[in-house]
Amino acid sequence: MKRFLDGDFLLNTQTAKRLYHSYAEELPIIDYHCHLNPKEIYEDKSFENITELWLGGDHYKWRLMRSFGIEERFITGDAPDKEKFFMWVKALQTAIGNPLYHWSHLELKNYFGYEGVICAENAEEIWDLCAERLKQSDFSARRLIERSGVEVVCTTDDPADDLMWHKKIAESDFSVKVLPSFRPDRALGIEKADYLDYINRLGDIKTFGQLKTVLLERLDYFVSLGCRVSDHGLEAVPFAPADETETEAIFAKKIKGEALSPIEINKFKTALLIFLCEQYKKENIVMQIHFGVIRDLSERVYNSLGADAGIDAIGDKASIKDLAAFLNAADKNGNLPKTIIYSLNPEDNAAIDSVTGAFQTSEAKGKIQHGSAWWFNDHKKGMTEHLSTLASEGHLGAFIGMLTDSRSFLSYARHEYFRRILCDIIGEWVENGEYPENEKLLKEIVQNISYFNAKQYFKF
Amino acid sequence: MKRFLDGDFLLNTQTAKRLYHSYAEELPIIDYHCHLNPKEIYEDKSFENITELWLGGDHYKWRLMRSFGIEERFITGDAPDKEKFFMWVKALQTAIGNPLYHWSHLELKNYFGYEGVICAENAEEIWDLCAERLKQSDFSARRLIERSGVEVVCTTDDPADDLMWHKKIAESDFSVKVLPSFRPDRALGIEKADYLDYINRLGDIKTFGQLKTVLLERLDYFVSLGCRVSDHGLEAVPFAPADETETEAIFAKKIKGEALSPIEINKFKTALLIFLCEQYKKENIVMQIHFGVIRDLSERVYNSLGADAGIDAIGDKASIKDLAAFLNAADKNGNLPKTIIYSLNPEDNAAIDSVTGAFQTSEAKGKIQHGSAWWFNDHKKGMTEHLSTLASEGHLGAFIGMLTDSRSFLSYARHEYFRRILCDIIGEWVENGEYPENEKLLKEIVQNISYFNAKQYFKF
Amino acid sequence: MKRFLDGDFLLNTQTAKRLYHSYAEELPIIDYHCHLNPKEIYEDKSFENITELWLGGDHYKWRLMRSFGIEERFITGDAPDKEKFFMWVKALQTAIGNPLYHWSHLELKNYFGYEGVICAENAEEIWDLCAERLKQSDFSARRLIERSGVEVVCTTDDPADDLMWHKKIAESDFSVKVLPSFRPDRALGIEKADYLDYINRLGDIKTFGQLKTVLLERLDYFVSLGCRVSDHGLEAVPFAPADETETEAIFAKKIKGEALSPIEINKFKTALLIFLCEQYKKENIVMQIHFGVIRDLSERVYNSLGADAGIDAIGDKASIKDLAAFLNAADKNGNLPKTIIYSLNPEDNAAIDSVTGAFQTSEAKGKIQHGSAWWFNDHKKGMTEHLSTLASEGHLGAFIGMLTDSRSFLSYARHEYFRRILCDIIGEWVENGEYPENEKLLKEIVQNISYFNAKQYFKF
Repeated sequence: MKRFLDGDFLLNTQTAKRLYHSYAEELPIIDYHCHLNPKEIYEDKSFENITELWLGGDHYKWRLMRSFGIEERFITGDAPDKEKFFMWVKALQTAIGNPLYHWSHLELKNYFGYEGVICAENAEEIWDLCAERLKQSDFSARRLIERSGVEVVCTTDDPADDLMWHKKIAESDFSVKVLPSFRPDRALGIEKADYLDYINRLGDIKTFGQLKTVLLERLDYFVSLGCRVSDHGLEAVPFAPADETETEAIFAKKIKGEALSPIEINKFKTALLIFLCEQYKKENIVMQIHFGVIRDLSERVYNSLGADAGIDAIGDKASIKDLAAFLNAADKNGNLPKTIIYSLNPEDNAAIDSVTGAFQTSEAKGKIQHGSAWWFNDHKKGMTEHLSTLASEGHLGAFIGMLTDSRSFLSYARHEYFRRILCDIIGEWVENGEYPENEKLLKEIVQNISYFNAKQYFKF
Repeated sequence: MKRFLDGDFLLNTQTAKRLYHSYAEELPIIDYHCHLNPKEIYEDKSFENITELWLGGDHYKWRLMRSFGIEERFITGDAPDKEKFFMWVKALQTAIGNPLYHWSHLELKNYFGYEGVICAENAEEIWDLCAERLKQSDFSARRLIERSGVEVVCTTDDPADDLMWHKKIAESDFSVKVLPSFRPDRALGIEKADYLDYINRLGDIKTFGQLKTVLLERLDYFVSLGCRVSDHGLEAVPFAPADETETEAIFAKKIKGEALSPIEINKFKTALLIFLCEQYKKENIVMQIHFGVIRDLSERVYNSLGADAGIDAIGDKASIKDLAAFLNAADKNGNLPKTIIYSLNPEDNAAIDSVTGAFQTSEAKGKIQHGSAWWFNDHKKGMTEHLSTLASEGHLGAFIGMLTDSRSFLSYARHEYFRRILCDIIGEWVENGEYPENEKLLKEIVQNISYFNAKQYFKF
Repeated sequence: MKRFLDGDFLLNTQTAKRLYHSYAEELPIIDYHCHLNPKEIYEDKSFENITELWLGGDHYKWRLMRSFGIEERFITGDAPDKEKFFMWVKALQTAIGNPLYHWSHLELKNYFGYEGVICAENAEEIWDLCAERLKQSDFSARRLIERSGVEVVCTTDDPADDLMWHKKIAESDFSVKVLPSFRPDRALGIEKADYLDYINRLGDIKTFGQLKTVLLERLDYFVSLGCRVSDHGLEAVPFAPADETETEAIFAKKIKGEALSPIEINKFKTALLIFLCEQYKKENIVMQIHFGVIRDLSERVYNSLGADAGIDAIGDKASIKDLAAFLNAADKNGNLPKTIIYSLNPEDNAAIDSVTGAFQTSEAKGKIQHGSAWWFNDHKKGMTEHLSTLASEGHLGAFIGMLTDSRSFLSYARHEYFRRILCDIIGEWVENGEYPENEKLLKEIVQNISYFNAKQYFKF
């Protein structure tokens, strides 16, 4: 019987324990994909109580509470914070096997020094302890980042953003690099009702050519502030080739307020994404593309709470054929940048791992990456599936490892979670005689995936 | 080396053993979804030999025999019952890893007291023992149900059914509740050749409005006899919104004998299902929807044996987008009842778990359920996959647990199978330090999933 | 701690060890599906160094090198062989969890007697050892096949092939049967630009009827040289029924150089495949169909290296509905031959296992087979998934086991890999009490899957 959440949490062999504690545990974190708010970092936000910190905007947690039948007023409503926390504990205590159960315990242990179990009987004690600790300076936004051993934070930013807070942070004495990431989803979202409003915000744009010029200027501006990564959230990877005349005509229709057909929308997106590939390649910007999500499923909740309310889900499997054709369209002209591919649907894992293998070159170790298990998949089962499929079909030793993808300053516990799972998998292989007990190579593999591969890949 | 099929079958840790034997083993069974024949229950059917009991209608077993190359005359043909049994044993004895291997042994052990191995050498002994035992009164339909600790049985019934046998059972001295379930598949099956015949059987129906009225009357009748559950077997979840004028026009075309287009069929089904949602919600009836099946694949076998002949299969993955849109269409007007979603394709597991999370409310603990692994998935691998995915993405503690989905009075062994697997998974998490050894919470989780959640959910 | 790659490699229980060493290890290999070159077999090709043997044409290995960022000149380019080998070692040594890591070690151990670890430090030693050994006569093509215990080799051959090398081998003193397999992909590939050229090579063909006649003649010729197996590589299983007039008209259009629509292409393929089913059935030829692959994804690499360059991938999931409809179309007229179904997408596993179950008959034990995990899936994870899904849904004891699917004379190590994994899975079930410790039945299961089922199925 292993004690719950002890120092060897998730580490089931001696080799796993040694690898984690000797090589992975102390390495810094490169948080190359997150949703932290740069304003909150600059202002070094502090938190009044654990409800604000945990339940303020974390729709993962809201879902779990709703699944347990908790009333909405204790979730996003006007119930007092303490009651909300008690309801959260009630919903969490039997959520066996859910990563929120593990993360919440890790966060309380690592940041608050609480080693007990989160359950109704301990709720009062936890509430009080957190309230006490949160008064200390060690719990501000910046201190939480620093205490987590973070070296670089890449936030997620719209091309129209002036990046004021990034500039201010850069000029401040904050020791951690906080860099913008270029996420032009709205510039690609030509099917959206507010597209023209957005385009007008972006610049004086009347043609597709002008749109490209403006986006390029914005990208250059981002790069001037240290941007190394772009990000694209796609419902599906588009692939419908069209020449410039046609894409200009499609854009012109949109400008005139005419409706576009699905194929026109697809052609526009394909053309713009391929254009961006070329720019990313030139500027050595890593491209992230992710798909397999459906958003805002419940109109009832959306009308009341808006986006990011815990009503998204895993979408249908991607078209692997389109994904491959898209990558080839950029690759054949030498314009495929370093690329990280994520699907939210775990059934895409094997196919993605095999597609990445077809586009690797000597430009980088693991030029085309299958991004880490995330969102609905960043649990032990999802990470294990992702890592073991990647190892079986690709080169695990070249993997750039975990991202945070979070709005919370406590979520760095997920990197610990990932590293423990990684070391456990590798430890089991070694102890089962499936990989030799070669300390030098094992150290290299573990350290590279935890830290060095990402550092080298993004050129931080 | 664990002994085959001993008291700790499938229980691999001390915690698993304790949880199962202390909390799960003795709890009653709520059989909220099965295909038992109410006439056979009322008449307290008895069985002449093990072939009649096992091979009479169990097309799971027929498939396995065909896969081993057994001639059809020993399966559904006119070979003597004893020869059929010997052929079954021949096909079963090397079916390592198949749930039929486990279930058959559990059934012989639990009901007949036979603890040996089912193999050619023991076939004669088993045949004789069963013949002897089946003469005893303990082996009639009612006694098998009672001996299994069943509290409620929900059969599967067509709206046109007069439920005569349910009424008779209710008036009898049988201690187990036997309730009808409302399964209006034929009323939805507007694409079928015999649709108008069926509609005429159902009532004097000339319009879509009349169809709805009649179905509502039948539902009320079912409810008056204790019905708490409906069931919908769909090839795919339909989603094509249409207004009443249009759905009336589609129905009118059908009445006139005109052909309907696929989109018209889809619109009709969407409209009728959404209407039924509203009624279920009003009457607090749980809605079950299942999909991902293709039926009667082999015309050769179908022409000779008809439906339920062992020639169905797992179908293509569902459209998760349509599933979500359908749920939303009911939900946005406050008309989504408690719903259980099943797919026969295990590749839908993760997506379904994430979709359910988007529609949870405080109306019930686990209002939207991802139904248990069943049919081609009710084996150890399938159940483990289902439970661990549900735990990882949703709230395992709110799960309503196992269904039987069987035509056989011995199939209650599947509940034991499920509970053992559940306790084994939980036991392993506890012993690995992934959940605390908190006896109170563990008891609550195990007992709720085995029994209390279903009881509360269905309001039995 | 188990020693890496010792005699009990991959065998984690005493039962697994006993089963493997007592029953599986020494059995001959029936290599019913491979891509060995019959000319190289006839001429008894020898190899100068390990680079030629390992990296000459193995695009699995090329992919892994590219994934590690190795320059193309060390992969398929003009770098000296020794440098290529050193680069291969560099890429392999951290490819933990990849089957190439295991296979490479097994091959060095089994054929060269090298028991060390493949890593940069040992590269020189391995290079020298292999160079030395390769001078010996034991390392020619024929000797490698013989040393591997192979009984039958089925190569993969185009109907237009004159099978000259097969005839020469048959007349030689080579003790291993080398039989042609009938793979008419090009005759089915009516959408291809060079289709008419190919048809002209095949014979004087102006009508669909003539095409069928010629193919039948070729099949008879193949059969006269011992062919027992056909093979069909399909992007997707076609299903679009058409009568003879229509298929003749489609073929006539093609002959006239007119373009065909996708539905016409599908109708042609369906008709020709169904015709071939009938012939295979008559001549007792096993039909293999495989799908779920996309080929030659990168135009850049294809233009430089051609096909089989390591740029294929797992394609989208198959249409299970079409697969089932296709099988039924042959089956309903009694023309479905023994059939082996493979998908490269592991997400098809469960559905395929359930579809096979619907078409089994007493013509053979396991008449319809779900073929072994292969290509991107022939790793421990993929084989375990395949075997455990097959066991859960079908009859593992009737499985015909592993294929090689390789161009390399060393790839027989994959059969050892498969047998070890098989015994490990079975051993674990036995030691967990999920199957009785019945030596007679266990021996039968292991030996049948390793050897006897295939021998009986193909009638070698």
